[in-house]
Amino acid sequence: MAHNDRARQLLKGLTIVTVNGTNQVLSGDIAIMDGMIQAVGPSLPADPEDTVLDMEGMLAMPPFVQTHVHLCQTLWRNMADDMSLIQWLKERTLPLEAAMTASTVRSSVLLSAAELLLSGTLLVNDFGLAGLVPDIARAVSGTGLRAVTGRILMDLHDGPPQLRQDASASIADAIATQREITGLPDIVGCSINPRFAVSSSMRLLEMVREAAGQTRMAIHTHASENEQENELTVARFGARPIRLYEKLGMLGPALRLAHCVKVDNDEIELIARTGTKVMHCPSTNLKLGSGIAPIPRMLEAGIPVSIGADGAPANNNLDMFNEMRIASLIQKPEHGPDCMPAWQILRMATINGAAALGLQHETGSIEPGKRADILILNPHLAHSTPFDDPVPAIVYSMGRENVRHVLSKGVFVVRDGKCELFGIDSAIAMAQMGSRDLRRRSSIDFK
Amino acid sequence: MAHNDRARQLLKGLTIVTVNGTNQVLSGDIAIMDGMIQAVGPSLPADPEDTVLDMEGMLAMPPFVQTHVHLCQTLWRNMADDMSLIQWLKERTLPLEAAMTASTVRSSVLLSAAELLLSGTLLVNDFGLAGLVPDIARAVSGTGLRAVTGRILMDLHDGPPQLRQDASASIADAIATQREITGLPDIVGCSINPRFAVSSSMRLLEMVREAAGQTRMAIHTHASENEQENELTVARFGARPIRLYEKLGMLGPALRLAHCVKVDNDEIELIARTGTKVMHCPSTNLKLGSGIAPIPRMLEAGIPVSIGADGAPANNNLDMFNEMRIASLIQKPEHGPDCMPAWQILRMATINGAAALGLQHETGSIEPGKRADILILNPHLAHSTPFDDPVPAIVYSMGRENVRHVLSKGVFVVRDGKCELFGIDSAIAMAQMGSRDLRRRSSIDFK
Repeated sequence: MAHNDRARQLLKGLTIVTVNGTNQVLSGDIAIMDGMIQAVGPSLPADPEDTVLDMEGMLAMPPFVQTHVHLCQTLWRNMADDMSLIQWLKERTLPLEAAMTASTVRSSVLLSAAELLLSGTLLVNDFGLAGLVPDIARAVSGTGLRAVTGRILMDLHDGPPQLRQDASASIADAIATQREITGLPDIVGCSINPRFAVSSSMRLLEMVREAAGQTRMAIHTHASENEQENELTVARFGARPIRLYEKLGMLGPALRLAHCVKVDNDEIELIARTGTKVMHCPSTNLKLGSGIAPIPRMLEAGIPVSIGADGAPANNNLDMFNEMRIASLIQKPEHGPDCMPAWQILRMATINGAAALGLQHETGSIEPGKRADILILNPHLAHSTPFDDPVPAIVYSMGRENVRHVLSKGVFVVRDGKCELFGIDSAIAMAQMGSRDLRRRSSIDFK
Repeated sequence: MAHNDRARQLLKGLTIVTVNGTNQVLSGDIAIMDGMIQAVGPSLPADPEDTVLDMEGMLAMPPFVQTHVHLCQTLWRNMADDMSLIQWLKERTLPLEAAMTASTVRSSVLLSAAELLLSGTLLVNDFGLAGLVPDIARAVSGTGLRAVTGRILMDLHDGPPQLRQDASASIADAIATQREITGLPDIVGCSINPRFAVSSSMRLLEMVREAAGQTRMAIHTHASENEQENELTVARFGARPIRLYEKLGMLGPALRLAHCVKVDNDEIELIARTGTKVMHCPSTNLKLGSGIAPIPRMLEAGIPVSIGADGAPANNNLDMFNEMRIASLIQKPEHGPDCMPAWQILRMATINGAAALGLQHETGSIEPGKRADILILNPHLAHSTPFDDPVPAIVYSMGRENVRHVLSKGVFVVRDGKCELFGIDSAIAMAQMGSRDLRRRSSIDFK
């Protein structure tokens, strides 16, 4: 289905869930010119030179944005189950991260990109690694996936020594990483990522704050994921994470906090007032036994919470359909069956994610003037029939199998359920081998 | 791939999750003769007249058994969202059930069968309708799905009058229904189904007990789904449902209770001691805001809990992969990340379901002498790679897309992800039309 890049593409016959300011849903067409959405509306007239794509019966929406993932953990999916957070880190995740190589990074990123794209996610905020971040970024480039990534910093922990680095050296490396990956195709940002307060000295956190200010990098970290993390943070710093970041003057729109499961109303108020970003990871929070984050209270306080699947070994998918459904369902016993309705969840999974990354003006909704980032779903499968009101269908019924095409700036990166830009079979085979290699190198006893 | 029905079929090259008494997993083959599993083991020798099916790299397990579903509710999927149980019943489900016809029953059952089979469920315990049960049974027959179903009884409620019937008349009809559907292909039982205590008189419950005893029908009902139901039951009968059924002498292996969300430790003890069956519906319990059933305490008390997706309008899928993952995850914040591990969940989804229906000697595990009911999964998809330990992969990572084939007594009812015995496209089109017809007839204002 080659087409003239200079010509207009016209996607015809869609139900369009725009996720615009008024949550408009309409029947009609999308016109794409130079990779941008030129027009959205019923029965757009076709010019003779337009490339017309018949999408009759299909559903269009913005692709999902996942604001907290670990692209490099996918190689140990299903190998770290039924453990708590600290055990999961010590016995599996830190030793395996320490054993990563340029080759296993590439395997893990390609596998993650395949899973993410095939389940409708186009843009992710990746937590990176303590090193090898340029390898992550180069592996992302060319898959079609778009990512923010960055370097993990840890200067205080009793895990693998190669993951423990002096604050100055790791900050210098984080800044060098930013220079190295900026401008790579589909790398849309570089952040600086202290893992969590528990593995940080006060000096590291202060240096991160300074470096972030000077380089305009956002800070991506984990905060208040469970009670134990809060207690360890109090023991070291005399304050829980949110209060600690307040004291350090770090709260604000450039601070991106994953989890926030164990936060009280005062902390929620602080987060809201400062415009600090919250990334909700509901499956992981359940699976590691951490708890259920008080998202309805955060939304009520005006925090535009977004969603991420976190790492595959703690989920064990990277699938926004799973996360949306579970994010809604788990709140209803406490907050009532009408809380977290489908529209609110869908905004969290799309435009709120774009906003968390400062990209809400270029993506996250289907509106003229934005990038032609479009997810095309086939609603006419058994598990999503009957099809009437599209938004509850997307949030409560649909799954990966409904994903038909994903367009990034007007280019198909998934077409007919297959990745267009790389071979899925070789990505799967490479990942299977990479996982074996990694486990051997890690010396973990898996039984 | 035609084969001689008298010849042996040999499925070669599988990873086999047997779900036998020792949870054995082995690499090898399955031999099928006359629809029964003849042998399971590594490298079974092939005779020249055997039909050998190369299943290299595939995973075999028993198909899922769902012990609480409503095949006739699937036509209002995604049309009853963000409501509590009683509102959901009054404003949607009872008026729509009352508007069902033989034609919409057929549409709903075919759609449900497609969704269930394509997601690996072969056997269901259906809650039926207040009438039209022979239509349900005839629609099931021939799809490949196997079902227990039965007549719903309600003699006390302020819902649609056509769903309210005198106890004697409805009991007589339930017994006639049993005679009418017994012996239909793939109908493996008929139960008698008082909806819940809230819509029953004492006389109805007593007559159900007598009729069940005389006809050897199991009793299928909803119990202690939420606090409101418990309170309404106390108001009418002076006891919560489990205590009420104890007083009535109804507890026992022939009583099948869906939900049991709001049960205390004494009630759990009663259920365990009497061998009463519990069917867990985790998604529905969350979505209607009912709560989280105390399943770890039930399992500890020795209750072999099984799982069902309940009705599509309260879920909004009929997918055991969803239910397994969520059944495990939601318990971990309260009971710890190591509770409800993958093997326990997989048994609940298979052999415990067979046992709830009294069919554990013929299905629910892959063992010589049982029916050749086999689910073949393709594990080599992006979201389930790397593939190493199959049980966490099945419970935490896999989904409908992994389903490749389903065999019922050695016959393919799903082959290569397609229903073999009926047309999926026409089932979807019929259901879409049936849903519109039903909504028009129900006179509900859906906006």
